[in-house]
Amino acid sequence: MPEFPRQSVPTLKARRLGIDTHHETVVFMRSDCHVCRAEGFSALNRIHLTSSEGSIIATLNVVHGDLLEAGEIGLSESSWQRLGVNVGDRIEVSHARPLDSFSFVRAKIFGGEFTADRLQEIMSDITAGRYSDVHLSSFVTACTSEHLNTGEIIALTDAMVKAGDRLGWDYPKVMDKHCVGGLPGNRTTPIVVAIVAAAGLVMPKTSSRAITSPAGTADTMEVLAPVDLTLNQMRKVVDQEGGCIVWGGAVSLSPADDILIRVERALELDSEAQLIASVLSKKIAAGSSHVLVDIPVGPTAKVRDHASAIRLSNSLNLVGEALGIKVQSMFTDGHQPIGYGIGPSLEARDVLNVLQNKASGSGMLRDRALDLAGAILEMAGQSTLGSGRNQAKMLLESGKAWQKFQAICEAQGGMREPVLAKYTHEVVSGAIGHVEHINNRYLSRLAKLAGAPADKAAGIEMHVRIGKRVEIGEPLFTIHAESPGELGYAMDFLAAHPGLMIVEEEQL
Amino acid sequence: MPEFPRQSVPTLKARRLGIDTHHETVVFMRSDCHVCRAEGFSALNRIHLTSSEGSIIATLNVVHGDLLEAGEIGLSESSWQRLGVNVGDRIEVSHARPLDSFSFVRAKIFGGEFTADRLQEIMSDITAGRYSDVHLSSFVTACTSEHLNTGEIIALTDAMVKAGDRLGWDYPKVMDKHCVGGLPGNRTTPIVVAIVAAAGLVMPKTSSRAITSPAGTADTMEVLAPVDLTLNQMRKVVDQEGGCIVWGGAVSLSPADDILIRVERALELDSEAQLIASVLSKKIAAGSSHVLVDIPVGPTAKVRDHASAIRLSNSLNLVGEALGIKVQSMFTDGHQPIGYGIGPSLEARDVLNVLQNKASGSGMLRDRALDLAGAILEMAGQSTLGSGRNQAKMLLESGKAWQKFQAICEAQGGMREPVLAKYTHEVVSGAIGHVEHINNRYLSRLAKLAGAPADKAAGIEMHVRIGKRVEIGEPLFTIHAESPGELGYAMDFLAAHPGLMIVEEEQL
Repeated sequence: MPEFPRQSVPTLKARRLGIDTHHETVVFMRSDCHVCRAEGFSALNRIHLTSSEGSIIATLNVVHGDLLEAGEIGLSESSWQRLGVNVGDRIEVSHARPLDSFSFVRAKIFGGEFTADRLQEIMSDITAGRYSDVHLSSFVTACTSEHLNTGEIIALTDAMVKAGDRLGWDYPKVMDKHCVGGLPGNRTTPIVVAIVAAAGLVMPKTSSRAITSPAGTADTMEVLAPVDLTLNQMRKVVDQEGGCIVWGGAVSLSPADDILIRVERALELDSEAQLIASVLSKKIAAGSSHVLVDIPVGPTAKVRDHASAIRLSNSLNLVGEALGIKVQSMFTDGHQPIGYGIGPSLEARDVLNVLQNKASGSGMLRDRALDLAGAILEMAGQSTLGSGRNQAKMLLESGKAWQKFQAICEAQGGMREPVLAKYTHEVVSGAIGHVEHINNRYLSRLAKLAGAPADKAAGIEMHVRIGKRVEIGEPLFTIHAESPGELGYAMDFLAAHPGLMIVEEEQL
Repeated sequence: MPEFPRQSVPTLKARRLGIDTHHETVVFMRSDCHVCRAEGFSALNRIHLTSSEGSIIATLNVVHGDLLEAGEIGLSESSWQRLGVNVGDRIEVSHARPLDSFSFVRAKIFGGEFTADRLQEIMSDITAGRYSDVHLSSFVTACTSEHLNTGEIIALTDAMVKAGDRLGWDYPKVMDKHCVGGLPGNRTTPIVVAIVAAAGLVMPKTSSRAITSPAGTADTMEVLAPVDLTLNQMRKVVDQEGGCIVWGGAVSLSPADDILIRVERALELDSEAQLIASVLSKKIAAGSSHVLVDIPVGPTAKVRDHASAIRLSNSLNLVGEALGIKVQSMFTDGHQPIGYGIGPSLEARDVLNVLQNKASGSGMLRDRALDLAGAILEMAGQSTLGSGRNQAKMLLESGKAWQKFQAICEAQGGMREPVLAKYTHEVVSGAIGHVEHINNRYLSRLAKLAGAPADKAAGIEMHVRIGKRVEIGEPLFTIHAESPGELGYAMDFLAAHPGLMIVEEEQL
């Protein structure tokens, strides 16, 4: 074959478009761009970008018109950050190589089995951003459809751990908890950590911020203390106080899980395999040795009945055992919100009221926290079987848990008081009767429209529970917002959704 | 419940961003937009847009920075066209309702079966643009993974037909052909249509443009005559000449197929069920009564072995029968390109050479076209069994097929001559030996880099076939391009991919 002189590789000028395409790396090229035409690129092709800083694979969106100048390539936020370029850097563009590890997904789709090696290659590619959303969706569907066996779930969990960071602790026992399918206002974690640490155990809790809910544990805790700690700062808090409640974002624990969860949500596809791998990969990566899993069971909870709860619990134990951590489950009532508040500040107030043993504290929140903390004390062998709850109760009632919580907040950077919102609207009953139904999904929507979680003080304060008898004019709940506009949006929504709370009128 | 005055629904000003996201409808909103914040939208949410013209569902990309002005909403091309708005129109934005039909996909993923009703609802939603790429990928994966049974394939094909337009013809027999997995340079269709129409049969052929290949039948035919006909113009041509070769874009035949194919390609996922539904839905929607399916079999063709070809052929027959059309398959050699040319003009020249019975015509292309045309004549009962090929040969050699082809071109708007490219580069052998291997995939890439199919005259002209003995300096193939730059890109690629054609050197 003849040899030709190699032309210089064509480059384009990087432009940051500020478009958030979440995990998926996307680039934008003009339809009349010489590179685009010569390489035969068309919309949705996967292409390979190289800058002086490194290289990534991205999905192409072709642009007609003048959004981009000639010779420019536009980058989404994810592309910009992964490639690590600066404004005006030159970027080389070429066709992406086929994604080798996706052939393992295809083999699974056609009825094969995942080996540990294959799952590790897949998770490594997913974490590196080499899977488009279309690939991720296919993987998630195949895992659900083809029913991973226990061996595959163990290998998937392990691969997810290995694709990210992993914390190590110099303690014989590292306690943790997780709640499957959180109810609104179920903010037990800060109370449980305070009790368990007060008992002398180690519980370094990394929590998430809200993705679709009105508050995550990290959002709520941030009302009371800084949660944005580096790994070293977090270690210092734990060494000093035995516990912490921080945001998990500083360390990259099972990053593949975060990427997959977004697609699972879009598809509303919850397989047991993925639930188990998701929960346990985060806990193993966090260095936990003992995990208590709170499984709320109820008609609108993630786990609908007792039989499913038992099956899930058994699988969690098996997978945990294979990967060297002790997992125990607790089935709890998943019918309605636990505390009074929904939204970061209002939930934080609930937490303080319980820790301070105030009469105004939510009894349900206190009971749930004591059940969970008691089970953890027993798991760790700190209490004998059957005496954990009593020990937890003593630690709470004696004020030791409250002292420990204050010490943890101080160690995390200083305790703060919850600030309440400027604008409130009290919703009262228009009838005499009983509260018959509360729609949790609408409650969450209402809290988000009022501004939660971005506005910490925004949210909903519940005054009644299912079954409560109310008079005309008696308060049902109060909407809290930080601007009149947001209060207005919430009230609009409420007017359009009267089924949010139903009061069954008494026949007089 | 109390009543609140309903606020006016917030609207945003439409801006056309010119971004081609292919099928998926995408919109862009500022992260600090009041609607975005109040509704709690985040990246990749599906949202509902309403203008005075109608409404659509679209995927949200959040924008940071100044790509959009405050109060604006940016629309991708697909969103802009589907919503049918004008610059500056006001658009209402709200959360999209859950996609009901996707629950049927979920049921399938968990092992259920598709009913005809459910598949119709799914295809209708896909055609209306209500499925994001993530949903489409899950559907395609589930169909592959869960192995649709024959009843489901029939229902899927029928649902795909019903989701689009359907042509009716006032002829007892309407002939058609299809090739599964086209080889480069396999441009038999114009020759087959000319022969079959010359025999007095009706063959209204709608063809596609290239998506990933260097030329589609419509691209090649466009070199010789207009193909961009309206449905009425097409009917006139067929009524007058018995045949046509037009672009299928004027009518929307099985539009769900076009949407699904793009995702199947991205996943490189070819299920037999989807192949059958894709081929037959297009043919049934086009009003065909008899379809000959050309199945090239070869190691790099879509169908790899004889057993798979037989299985595919049987399924095609069963599904065709259930939906009222006669389907017959022909297994052909899928080892190497058929004609000499690759690219619209070069392929068009091959077609003319065969139709005009020139000695310079490709013998392989002529043979393949005669085989196919003969089989169609027999299917229609125009020839007795075993005599079809002879009749086809007589129609070709007598010049009747050539006359018919000219008449069809005139009826479609006037015949044109292929124009050849300005710039060529002849690649010659550097050794004495035999052509041992041709990489079809690289050939296609090379033709596209040279400018095909956008530059009609660009492409590759083959001078040798596998097994040919060549001397030093003997031409192997010629690259054709319409600009020196494109010729340069092609030559760069060639220099980097010497395995494109391998000449096994003789031991002297």
